[in-house]
Amino acid sequence: RAIKTIQIDSAMVDKAGFKHFMAKEIAEQPVVLQGALSHYINAEATAVTMPDPEIDFAQVERMTMVACGTAFYACLVAKYWFEQIAGIPVEVDVASEFRYREPPVTKGTVALFISQSGETADTLAALRYMQGKADKIMSVVNVPESSIARESDMPLPILAGTEIGVASTKAFTCQLTTLAILALRAAQMRGRINDAELAEKLAALRSLPGLLNLALGIEDKTKSISRKLAEARDILFLGRGAMYPLALEGALKLKEISYIHAEAYASGELKHGPIALVDKHVPIIVMAPRDSLFDKTVSNMQEVMARGGKVLLITDQKGATEASTGVWETIIMPEVDPFLAPILYAVPAQLLAYHTAVAKGTDVDQPRNLAKSVTVE
Amino acid sequence: RAIKTIQIDSAMVDKAGFKHFMAKEIAEQPVVLQGALSHYINAEATAVTMPDPEIDFAQVERMTMVACGTAFYACLVAKYWFEQIAGIPVEVDVASEFRYREPPVTKGTVALFISQSGETADTLAALRYMQGKADKIMSVVNVPESSIARESDMPLPILAGTEIGVASTKAFTCQLTTLAILALRAAQMRGRINDAELAEKLAALRSLPGLLNLALGIEDKTKSISRKLAEARDILFLGRGAMYPLALEGALKLKEISYIHAEAYASGELKHGPIALVDKHVPIIVMAPRDSLFDKTVSNMQEVMARGGKVLLITDQKGATEASTGVWETIIMPEVDPFLAPILYAVPAQLLAYHTAVAKGTDVDQPRNLAKSVTVE
Repeated sequence: RAIKTIQIDSAMVDKAGFKHFMAKEIAEQPVVLQGALSHYINAEATAVTMPDPEIDFAQVERMTMVACGTAFYACLVAKYWFEQIAGIPVEVDVASEFRYREPPVTKGTVALFISQSGETADTLAALRYMQGKADKIMSVVNVPESSIARESDMPLPILAGTEIGVASTKAFTCQLTTLAILALRAAQMRGRINDAELAEKLAALRSLPGLLNLALGIEDKTKSISRKLAEARDILFLGRGAMYPLALEGALKLKEISYIHAEAYASGELKHGPIALVDKHVPIIVMAPRDSLFDKTVSNMQEVMARGGKVLLITDQKGATEASTGVWETIIMPEVDPFLAPILYAVPAQLLAYHTAVAKGTDVDQPRNLAKSVTVE
Repeated sequence: RAIKTIQIDSAMVDKAGFKHFMAKEIAEQPVVLQGALSHYINAEATAVTMPDPEIDFAQVERMTMVACGTAFYACLVAKYWFEQIAGIPVEVDVASEFRYREPPVTKGTVALFISQSGETADTLAALRYMQGKADKIMSVVNVPESSIARESDMPLPILAGTEIGVASTKAFTCQLTTLAILALRAAQMRGRINDAELAEKLAALRSLPGLLNLALGIEDKTKSISRKLAEARDILFLGRGAMYPLALEGALKLKEISYIHAEAYASGELKHGPIALVDKHVPIIVMAPRDSLFDKTVSNMQEVMARGGKVLLITDQKGATEASTGVWETIIMPEVDPFLAPILYAVPAQLLAYHTAVAKGTDVDQPRNLAKSVTVE
């Protein structure tokens, strides 16, 4: 096979004035997301453009989504979108488990694999397991020349640009954006949304770069909170519904670069064990926009506070007005269509981890024990 | 409705010489499991007896299993069994998430709910969501008069006897045993195993009480290791395949009663972030019988040791001979059919949590912040 030289723009691999690649990559999210949106949505924001030949989602009976680490959390969010918007049942799994459990695959299954590098060893092995079993293989990757892209029937680029920081940031939000657009296209093909509803959702997506810019305005606030988080040994993250994967992402980011033992729980699971950990030394970070699940999450949050827990509530203005009594700290996010909240709430997850790591003085871009792409099993 | 008085045998609610209910309940597992086995398996160990009318598993296209806490981990183990032995695709979810995500339900779906008390609020709500959507509703409960049992088409009692300790022990192993038998019956009805294979697996199940007795012989060893674990602030549990849910159970037990921040990971996910936590202060507990995934888990374990991690390996004699070089501590379990390893490996998960809590002096039977049954949302 001929060797293909991959161009990397040199401007993309310097820090452009930022202290760390991670800070630069967090900051450039509005711009790269804009690029991804323009790639998949037409100028009038009325239609989605997918690579040809497109998969006929009207024929899809279920989807299996597989990935590792942060990309796996993107699968968990996408599960909500595909089930609720497109009505397609979705099974998700981490690649290292999926490849060995030899799951039965039924007719009409489309498999989707997510990997920033496109070379993640377990994800590639899982993809190969599904070849010949799934009707179609899709992938969502940042490197279009990668093995995972090349072995897929329909690879979707996320157009995040080169990501250098080991802790994934802009790749995650671009993965989510690509998946949100795909879920809308699937819903359209299945007759679950009409043209007007599609246009409304696409318009919401087009507003994301602006909202991300606004959301980045919480940076000073996260910096001052992070100085206090840096003193914690253990931190819990809570979320419900599509905010649960964001809680997982917040905990993973913090673990990766600050070495604080952060762990996420679906809010409703707290009472089934982990609430025993709660005392005044364990900050609890609650990710809860004012959506249909808000009251449930607030009720879990109040149980935590009744047991001496110190709560950082990340919500919007409405949520803060309703529920910030007795809370330790509040971060106020821009209001956003609940459908897109998981993309926007990646920003506080990233900034809290980043500033906590900076406060602790750890090596943000090259955390101990970790590699950027895991290309061995 | 007439009030039904439920008999509780007084002998079952005293500690029978044990220091805690939890210790008594761990110790009585061989006996109660024997009772569950006799209930579901005929004396010749050739056939499974299920309540009439039985569900025709040949017609089942997929299963959805829902629960909270420890019972959810029983679902995760059962997923492996039903997929690998009976060839039925299984979706699992925690009840508090399932009930609000309004998942699409396809024809031929059987829903199965697990709850010790049979009154867990989120699990009951999830069950009610599935009424009219699933073809059949099954449940696996310890209290046959409970709401969840009464609202099921086919409630299966686990016959664990009254469980007093807040941290579930014998209910978990009896749930698993009931589910293992059900998976075998499903496999038989679907023509996936013949009579000889069924008899072989049933014989293996019948040997479990004896193996559990043998496994309880690790108690002195776990006691001495637990004195050292009690000094840790953070602990990681690792496992692959059906051992991953056991790692989750080990971490939850330890959290619940010792208040140590223990967290479980699928071994293969370690490199995608959490390995950054590893240093000499974080004990890593690896649950790995010498099965087909053993080499993969050992390779993850060696990565941890290369980064200064202190490993407690829980394995059988073969596994210990092959892989205990450089390991901090080893607990040697009896050899067991890999199919049943998840039931047997509950014992070290329970004993380590119990003795660590005793060493720390916490209230084992009534841990802070927790209730035995979560009957509110």
